[in-house]
Amino acid sequence: MKKIMNDPGTIVEEMLAGIVKSYPELVHQVGDSRVIAKNHQREQVGLVSGGGSGHEPAHAGFVGTGMLSVAVLGDVFTSPTPDQIQTAIKEADKGEGVLLIIKNYTGDILNFEMAKDMAMMDGIDVEEVVVDDDIAVENSTYTAGKRGVAGTVLVHKILGDAARNGASLSELKELGDRVVAKIKTIGVALRAATVPEVGKPGFELAEDEIEYGVGIHGEPGYRREKLHPSKMLAKELVTKILSEYPEKPKEVGVLVNGMGGTPLMEQFVFINDILMLLEKESIEVTFHKVGDFMTSLDMQGISLTVIDLTNTAWKAALTSDVETISW
Amino acid sequence: MKKIMNDPGTIVEEMLAGIVKSYPELVHQVGDSRVIAKNHQREQVGLVSGGGSGHEPAHAGFVGTGMLSVAVLGDVFTSPTPDQIQTAIKEADKGEGVLLIIKNYTGDILNFEMAKDMAMMDGIDVEEVVVDDDIAVENSTYTAGKRGVAGTVLVHKILGDAARNGASLSELKELGDRVVAKIKTIGVALRAATVPEVGKPGFELAEDEIEYGVGIHGEPGYRREKLHPSKMLAKELVTKILSEYPEKPKEVGVLVNGMGGTPLMEQFVFINDILMLLEKESIEVTFHKVGDFMTSLDMQGISLTVIDLTNTAWKAALTSDVETISW
Repeated sequence: MKKIMNDPGTIVEEMLAGIVKSYPELVHQVGDSRVIAKNHQREQVGLVSGGGSGHEPAHAGFVGTGMLSVAVLGDVFTSPTPDQIQTAIKEADKGEGVLLIIKNYTGDILNFEMAKDMAMMDGIDVEEVVVDDDIAVENSTYTAGKRGVAGTVLVHKILGDAARNGASLSELKELGDRVVAKIKTIGVALRAATVPEVGKPGFELAEDEIEYGVGIHGEPGYRREKLHPSKMLAKELVTKILSEYPEKPKEVGVLVNGMGGTPLMEQFVFINDILMLLEKESIEVTFHKVGDFMTSLDMQGISLTVIDLTNTAWKAALTSDVETISW
Repeated sequence: MKKIMNDPGTIVEEMLAGIVKSYPELVHQVGDSRVIAKNHQREQVGLVSGGGSGHEPAHAGFVGTGMLSVAVLGDVFTSPTPDQIQTAIKEADKGEGVLLIIKNYTGDILNFEMAKDMAMMDGIDVEEVVVDDDIAVENSTYTAGKRGVAGTVLVHKILGDAARNGASLSELKELGDRVVAKIKTIGVALRAATVPEVGKPGFELAEDEIEYGVGIHGEPGYRREKLHPSKMLAKELVTKILSEYPEKPKEVGVLVNGMGGTPLMEQFVFINDILMLLEKESIEVTFHKVGDFMTSLDMQGISLTVIDLTNTAWKAALTSDVETISW
């Protein structure tokens, strides 16, 4: 394993210190917890998200004006503990309640809901939105139902904008559920991630092999194949995603997400192929974003997220200004 | 070689198409050239930068309000041709002249200066600033003198701010030379980049080996060693950089740059170590930036850039708002 690090046992604490020391004008650590909070939070519904570490810039990179109030970090690929999440909820509560945005993994659901119950006993209104955008497989290594992956950052963005504009907790909960239903993601891996504590890749792919539908913790996908040109990868992923919508969208947003070890050059080649396919389908793309948003440590791979924007006003929310480290 | 691409021969054109289709609100392609220009350029001195492809997001990602007017792309790791650069200069000229920001490589200097001569014969005022921030080695595979690397983006930022605020061509040239003299960069590679046309890594490092001082095209560095913890890498790079300043800086800015295959988690661990060392040296850090800015395709590695901000007003220029794809 070749990584720039000191000790797998302290890697999350050191990363957290690096984040808050590098962006003191935007965020701070809450005490000595694993919670990173926006400076100068306003009176609004608090938005909390988080999960295992190893997905940077998610989630701390999306804390700031117009997106998340607070992010809470677990160990690498491991849910934060309920007490850490409770700290996050308390930090985000400014009297108007707190919405939790949770990626659908069994451990996260369990811990976030336990923290929610504890916070509600303390008199804080808490609701939750569960993101399950990964259409690759039903159920998976750490998940009942579909996994929550890169589409989560679009939920952060749309709900962050609504919260800033004064939406109530119940409005945000309702909006979040509607948004999640319109987001579909699917990924492909060329090389597995190496967890620092483990020291070797989570699975092996041959030199000419890829796996479709891999999760952001290296969970199995649905097919292994020879590596194909970008155009063919794009066609597989676009076809899969469009088949998930009951009605073909007229207008969409597209997020191409690098998994941590995929250069931008390849991401831009890939989105070019995606956009040509969507144009052939006469689907208008009114929002685009390319880069590393929800990574899997050093995994070489890419994911495509589509959000159906037909008959919605969400484009404005996706493109509004924010002050964050990484949007 | 495992890359998401179609054909090495068209990879730059496809990437360029991906960039301009994804960010039409910010940039456009000039005709069918390899030139990416800011939309709605104002009356100001035009700033042009560029170089070989494979360093994304540099340089196209820094085109926009407050940074570059125009970027010009060459083939992978190859200077753009003089006619392409001339197109870029013409596009950037709004009557107040054009400043070229060139990374110090023999091919780039040759081609940018040829284009400069051609443009001046057409009556356009052109000046140049050559960035040679890489302190690792004197002379190198493609360079006489020191190489130009990640510190170049700080030059884009400071000059971009000054140009927006109405600085003249001669003022920008003078400022640029002063800024370049204060920027020092050094990098370390854990795994070499693979050029698409070549199909295999540019050099081989053993599983436990790193190379200090590697260039952004895989040029040789100054020492191979066993992989060390981040703290030791940080100490080597900080010590080298500080020894280059005739007087120890009181106030600096720090840019930690991933080389394309280095996850953010590792970059944040590394900057944490850097900041602890600078604190011990009683050097105040008033500007920080972490991420992929000047990459080398899929190279696994990292670079540290320090800019001496003592007795300057450059911090404001580094932190002012911009509208670009990647700053």
